[in-house]
Amino acid sequence: MAYKDQQLSEEKVFKDPVHRYVHVRDRVIWDLIATPEFQRLRRIKQLGTTNLTFHGAEHSRFNHSLGVYEIVRRILNNFENRPHWNNEERLLCLCAALLHDLGHGPFSHSFEKVFKLDHEYFTQQIITGDTKINEILENVSPGFSQKVSDVIGKTYKDKLVVSLISSQIDADRMDYLQRDAYYTGVSYGHFDMERILRVMRPIEDQVVIKSTGMHAVEDYIMSRYQMYWQVYFHPVTRSAEVILSKILHRAKELYESNDFTFKLKPTHFISFFEGKVKLDEYLKLDESIVHYYFQLWQEEQDDILSDLCERFMNRRLFKYVEFNPNLQMKEWMELYQLFMDAGINPEYYLVVDSSSDLPYDFYRPGEEEERLPIHLLMPDDSLKELSRHSDIVEAISGKKRTDHKLYFPKDRLDKLEDKTTKKRIKEILYGQGDVKNVR
Amino acid sequence: MAYKDQQLSEEKVFKDPVHRYVHVRDRVIWDLIATPEFQRLRRIKQLGTTNLTFHGAEHSRFNHSLGVYEIVRRILNNFENRPHWNNEERLLCLCAALLHDLGHGPFSHSFEKVFKLDHEYFTQQIITGDTKINEILENVSPGFSQKVSDVIGKTYKDKLVVSLISSQIDADRMDYLQRDAYYTGVSYGHFDMERILRVMRPIEDQVVIKSTGMHAVEDYIMSRYQMYWQVYFHPVTRSAEVILSKILHRAKELYESNDFTFKLKPTHFISFFEGKVKLDEYLKLDESIVHYYFQLWQEEQDDILSDLCERFMNRRLFKYVEFNPNLQMKEWMELYQLFMDAGINPEYYLVVDSSSDLPYDFYRPGEEEERLPIHLLMPDDSLKELSRHSDIVEAISGKKRTDHKLYFPKDRLDKLEDKTTKKRIKEILYGQGDVKNVR
Amino acid sequence: MAYKDQQLSEEKVFKDPVHRYVHVRDRVIWDLIATPEFQRLRRIKQLGTTNLTFHGAEHSRFNHSLGVYEIVRRILNNFENRPHWNNEERLLCLCAALLHDLGHGPFSHSFEKVFKLDHEYFTQQIITGDTKINEILENVSPGFSQKVSDVIGKTYKDKLVVSLISSQIDADRMDYLQRDAYYTGVSYGHFDMERILRVMRPIEDQVVIKSTGMHAVEDYIMSRYQMYWQVYFHPVTRSAEVILSKILHRAKELYESNDFTFKLKPTHFISFFEGKVKLDEYLKLDESIVHYYFQLWQEEQDDILSDLCERFMNRRLFKYVEFNPNLQMKEWMELYQLFMDAGINPEYYLVVDSSSDLPYDFYRPGEEEERLPIHLLMPDDSLKELSRHSDIVEAISGKKRTDHKLYFPKDRLDKLEDKTTKKRIKEILYGQGDVKNVR
Amino acid sequence: MAYKDQQLSEEKVFKDPVHRYVHVRDRVIWDLIATPEFQRLRRIKQLGTTNLTFHGAEHSRFNHSLGVYEIVRRILNNFENRPHWNNEERLLCLCAALLHDLGHGPFSHSFEKVFKLDHEYFTQQIITGDTKINEILENVSPGFSQKVSDVIGKTYKDKLVVSLISSQIDADRMDYLQRDAYYTGVSYGHFDMERILRVMRPIEDQVVIKSTGMHAVEDYIMSRYQMYWQVYFHPVTRSAEVILSKILHRAKELYESNDFTFKLKPTHFISFFEGKVKLDEYLKLDESIVHYYFQLWQEEQDDILSDLCERFMNRRLFKYVEFNPNLQMKEWMELYQLFMDAGINPEYYLVVDSSSDLPYDFYRPGEEEERLPIHLLMPDDSLKELSRHSDIVEAISGKKRTDHKLYFPKDRLDKLEDKTTKKRIKEILYGQGDVKNVR
Repeated sequence: MAYKDQQLSEEKVFKDPVHRYVHVRDRVIWDLIATPEFQRLRRIKQLGTTNLTFHGAEHSRFNHSLGVYEIVRRILNNFENRPHWNNEERLLCLCAALLHDLGHGPFSHSFEKVFKLDHEYFTQQIITGDTKINEILENVSPGFSQKVSDVIGKTYKDKLVVSLISSQIDADRMDYLQRDAYYTGVSYGHFDMERILRVMRPIEDQVVIKSTGMHAVEDYIMSRYQMYWQVYFHPVTRSAEVILSKILHRAKELYESNDFTFKLKPTHFISFFEGKVKLDEYLKLDESIVHYYFQLWQEEQDDILSDLCERFMNRRLFKYVEFNPNLQMKEWMELYQLFMDAGINPEYYLVVDSSSDLPYDFYRPGEEEERLPIHLLMPDDSLKELSRHSDIVEAISGKKRTDHKLYFPKDRLDKLEDKTTKKRIKEILYGQGDVKNVR
Repeated sequence: MAYKDQQLSEEKVFKDPVHRYVHVRDRVIWDLIATPEFQRLRRIKQLGTTNLTFHGAEHSRFNHSLGVYEIVRRILNNFENRPHWNNEERLLCLCAALLHDLGHGPFSHSFEKVFKLDHEYFTQQIITGDTKINEILENVSPGFSQKVSDVIGKTYKDKLVVSLISSQIDADRMDYLQRDAYYTGVSYGHFDMERILRVMRPIEDQVVIKSTGMHAVEDYIMSRYQMYWQVYFHPVTRSAEVILSKILHRAKELYESNDFTFKLKPTHFISFFEGKVKLDEYLKLDESIVHYYFQLWQEEQDDILSDLCERFMNRRLFKYVEFNPNLQMKEWMELYQLFMDAGINPEYYLVVDSSSDLPYDFYRPGEEEERLPIHLLMPDDSLKELSRHSDIVEAISGKKRTDHKLYFPKDRLDKLEDKTTKKRIKEILYGQGDVKNVR
Repeated sequence: MAYKDQQLSEEKVFKDPVHRYVHVRDRVIWDLIATPEFQRLRRIKQLGTTNLTFHGAEHSRFNHSLGVYEIVRRILNNFENRPHWNNEERLLCLCAALLHDLGHGPFSHSFEKVFKLDHEYFTQQIITGDTKINEILENVSPGFSQKVSDVIGKTYKDKLVVSLISSQIDADRMDYLQRDAYYTGVSYGHFDMERILRVMRPIEDQVVIKSTGMHAVEDYIMSRYQMYWQVYFHPVTRSAEVILSKILHRAKELYESNDFTFKLKPTHFISFFEGKVKLDEYLKLDESIVHYYFQLWQEEQDDILSDLCERFMNRRLFKYVEFNPNLQMKEWMELYQLFMDAGINPEYYLVVDSSSDLPYDFYRPGEEEERLPIHLLMPDDSLKELSRHSDIVEAISGKKRTDHKLYFPKDRLDKLEDKTTKKRIKEILYGQGDVKNVR
Repeated sequence: MAYKDQQLSEEKVFKDPVHRYVHVRDRVIWDLIATPEFQRLRRIKQLGTTNLTFHGAEHSRFNHSLGVYEIVRRILNNFENRPHWNNEERLLCLCAALLHDLGHGPFSHSFEKVFKLDHEYFTQQIITGDTKINEILENVSPGFSQKVSDVIGKTYKDKLVVSLISSQIDADRMDYLQRDAYYTGVSYGHFDMERILRVMRPIEDQVVIKSTGMHAVEDYIMSRYQMYWQVYFHPVTRSAEVILSKILHRAKELYESNDFTFKLKPTHFISFFEGKVKLDEYLKLDESIVHYYFQLWQEEQDDILSDLCERFMNRRLFKYVEFNPNLQMKEWMELYQLFMDAGINPEYYLVVDSSSDLPYDFYRPGEEEERLPIHLLMPDDSLKELSRHSDIVEAISGKKRTDHKLYFPKDRLDKLEDKTTKKRIKEILYGQGDVKNVR
């Protein structure tokens, strides 16, 4: 029997707290999971620094990737005999679902920003490059790995397949909302996925939702909104990310400087510092390695690097206030100068972080990120864009919300000896009242 | 106000999936949580290698420690005005609960066995040694750290306090059963803790259970039984532990040998190899460090070390069969010789692992581990040992169950070229039939 | 000890699926629960006819009343030592919470509409009239029953107390959303009540919410919205209510007519038909009695009454289409005539039902139902009306949504012999397409 | 298309809190659910008087019947292509599952005991008699109704089919354990049904369990054990049942006596009193009718009847003590006499109730109720009886546990004026101490 059609002699299952069980019957899927590249995802947390805010959020990308695969598997079970659905695409969808996050590194958000990387690029590299994953996919059929890569890159010709993996209501989002809610323990993130799966219908170029399931979709969109503001953009999590980014900046700066030598050569980081990361180097970097270096760097002779690393490892985070530098340019410049005067390097210790989210949007051609809208399939078989049918969604549609926060080491301000500087800094930061820190 | 009595201006909470919220009001507790020694527990998984079997089990000891603290806090809330309860002991109990696992290192089970360590010894060292934890505890009152250490070591004079932290139905067990069930996703591990807490009563020298709550306790004991056999002793988890132990053995052996030099000096491990681990060295070793070395050791020039590390990191585990060497001594010896003949070092690749559990026991003086029984408080205020009142508990009381498994690398056997050796090995391992591997 | 201060020797608990346990310590509460008037609530379903749509929704008002009591009890535990809170009002709040629904009869919605009754009037009658409930309350202190009645009637002078029991985020709503979600099994209705309770603060004249808890309140409001449209206004449930109302109408009409005699005198209904219901008669009417009569009426000689009763008991409900008579007056009049021509009495078999909901509103003085807004307590201790701080709530604030449906017996239309009438009726009802019936 | 093969145009679902959704595709099933005989189950509580102890337990037999159907549907989905399974039996199994409880009346336990009825007999009567149910089944194929009846009566020739519906681990038990746990809110009753369904295998004459699923079965058996003792045999529930039985006894006695005339002729009960219940009369009796009569009987002129009815409706239950009349014959006789002396008719007010349960048993030929054991399917395809493989099950296997309680109206004893009698009664009942009453 052709490799692509081989079935395991007995279905294998993974016990999964979110979907109860993840079911595997295809040998290809089983083999992909067993590769070193996929196993590596066990050492990369799904939510980066979020566990410093929500201690339960220690789950890995391995965990999530299996979940996305399982959701797509269930969707395709429902699609099996439906019009428009070509069951030949089944294995392609399953592989793309399983592998869509393969290129994530540790703390992707910060690493990508500081080192100008893109995890999707690495996902595609792993799939098409010289890896075990690629070997298995090419075994399915020559060129199959490229197809998987195209689906993930959204360039695959069959848009129906693409929309299963990436859209405003795809398996990826449905898994992470529920999973992240489960592991953090927050009560948001619940929606009736079983119902959504049952009302999904394939049409020519996309997956649509039977209109009778509209309320379940509304609930999903509200879950998404709440998870963004309550979990993903939690200011304490962002504080840890701010510190992490500054560590990476500082280490790079030191590496580039002529005046500084690391006690231990930062072997694993060099290609990152030099901006020419090769695939095999990228694959070696997981969270363990990062933690290892951060532990060592606590003892490096640069005060900024060692302080920031110590803060990160021991969770001595920055505090924050609401602050919008666009509107408060004068205060911003004054603060910057005051920090300089006080001997606290503002490049590293006075940081604005802005987060913004657009909970749902219809199609706005030409905008920076064109989003494909969710379409409802009406009883008369016409399509209707979701926000034209749902009051709730219409109300929040296209409304981008942005939150600006200013991060700083309150402990160091508290210890400032120059009373005038200290007083003025606090005046600007807290105005008349006193700051409220969450944790 | 004395440090020990200081309260935070607002109660702080940690969102916890198991107990909903962990509540902190005492400044002492808040400060203990913020120490580097306690934050380090974030980098140590509660269940070691279990996540290789149950991918959800990625939670840390930090997570569990907060949970145990929270349970004790709730118990003490109920005890507040009860006879026999001295509320002066409250802070002591809370600290002991929070800190009881502080000395756990990464993959404690294997490390302790191979390097003859004892996590409880390190817990007590951290509490009484030169640490931030100790500083805070001594700030409560001189000698307070020793008291906390005594409670954890079960030598504290007030046995009621000790039994809250360590008994057959203590806060530690109640937390981990529920927590491990939550994160693995198994359906065992649920019992009505709220009810158990409500029927706990302090008496002179122990915590007892009002007899009306007996069924909830039965359910707890059955949960415990199921969790041991379904999760903690899962044969796949033990396979990973077997490999881990063998890595540590091999690395030590190589370090001690004159013929081998590590490419990278195993700095973090040296004191372990030499059997003289100091506290500060111990505290540096978390799972990240272990993973870092295992990654490097994959490229060391010793075949056994690099193979075992590669297996561990990429989850290429050993397979297993039921095998009791005590009863099958002849087969064992023959197998050992066959492995030698085949060039597969049986010291590292043919490993028996035995697990045993005693779900509940009454007091049997003089036995290897004397267990204090659970006592029911009867309506007439007499005490009755649990198994004398519960049919179910009586049925399993004192019944030790042991499971023996033999682990080996099936992949290498499959590739053996000497057909006769291969055939004979498989005959012994699988008898007439063929092995069934779980995953 | 004064009756009002008496405590049970041991706390009593009720096992409750929603709040885990309902705790009772006050003797007054215990005694109130044991009265026949309160026990009667066991025989009145919380959601009337909803169980014909969601078969799980078979829970009683007894169930819900205990839940509301429990929530208020928990709120007051948190309030105990807060400024503005007068703990003297504790028992009053608990009694009002427990008893707030006491006057509900079976299928209140339909009975109130048809017979022009008001359950709140009866609640107050039971509390202040000649009942066991009144006896217990007066035992607390003379005039206490009137106070309880005033709180429920929102005329009590202390507005803080009133707002605990009746506001846009009161214990009543928090209980029923969660409880109705639990019993129906829908995934809406979950919100983080524990968090809301923790951020509730008493001020002079109302309960407010600390602004840090805003997202939990948003989630509560979205739950409310979803429950209304997904559960409470479910068109199938409304079909059963339409039939029920028509049964009551018909029975009254027959009673008033000179030409008809009931086989069995409808003793329990007479005072309802005659519009002069006395308290003791009201208290005798529970769902069992209604079902008893409906069973008998199936055999009465009036075709309409027997048909409608048979439909209700055996769940042969009316079907429905979207239909707004205000906009479709011409069609409405034509349909009415067609039904007459076809011999299907349109008074009973062609029924428009309109449901509308306002998920949240700020204060609009002078409007038909003045709603007190939810106020957030900001970090600087100022108050801010919720919709001015929450984008989501602002988006739906004050947006009333109305749904009109036309109900009719499709089975009878299908059997019409006059093809022309039948065709024309179906044309009007379904337009070009065909109707989609939910269940 | 033949009626038996007709499918609904779209799958219909019922939202179910326990199984999430109940799925219906077969027209036959849809039509059976719509019959008056099946809809009647909505007016019969699954757990009779249990809601007087656990207020959440208000769910109906309708609810449970759908659940059993759904479980069998899922099992058969898994069986579809397995050896030994004849898919021709599918519809038969589904019908038997759906209809297995059809003959239950209100408060079956008491009614059956007092009036010597058997609900299974009525189930078979409804299925084979002159009913809508029968009409539909015969429409499937002539004689099909008899087959369904035979499966429920366990006389059907294909024992594999019978064992799906009735065995020690059948769909009935799996549904009610979970459902009753859900509605009562107790934490027992959870087990991993999804896993059990996945390891069920059809063999020639029974359903067996793959040995890898043994622990899930152990958990199920422990759930069963706990539910029996914690919920089904709860002494407060039994108190209500004792009163209910005594009401029925008394009413029958009065009916048979020449000296008494009911104010309202007990029409619905007459055939029960006379021991010749016809099917149509039986079908009319649901809980509403019973409650209706009990309300009226409160005002009958017989003190015993009116008192017992008032107790039942207002939940003024009897109290209880442990009492085994077999061992305490002398006390029993003395008590009986003392009650007579005190003017409290012991036939109605001094009642022993004994409950016993056998959690699991292997086959013991010739015993009063032969139970078919649960068999495990071992890796070598042999069968092994469960208790021979599971320590836990072996420990409780065949152990019948019995609990005897004596019920009496404590309130009346408290009011006795004859101090000597009162004192002696209390001495016998409570011994030296004082009774503890649960609720």
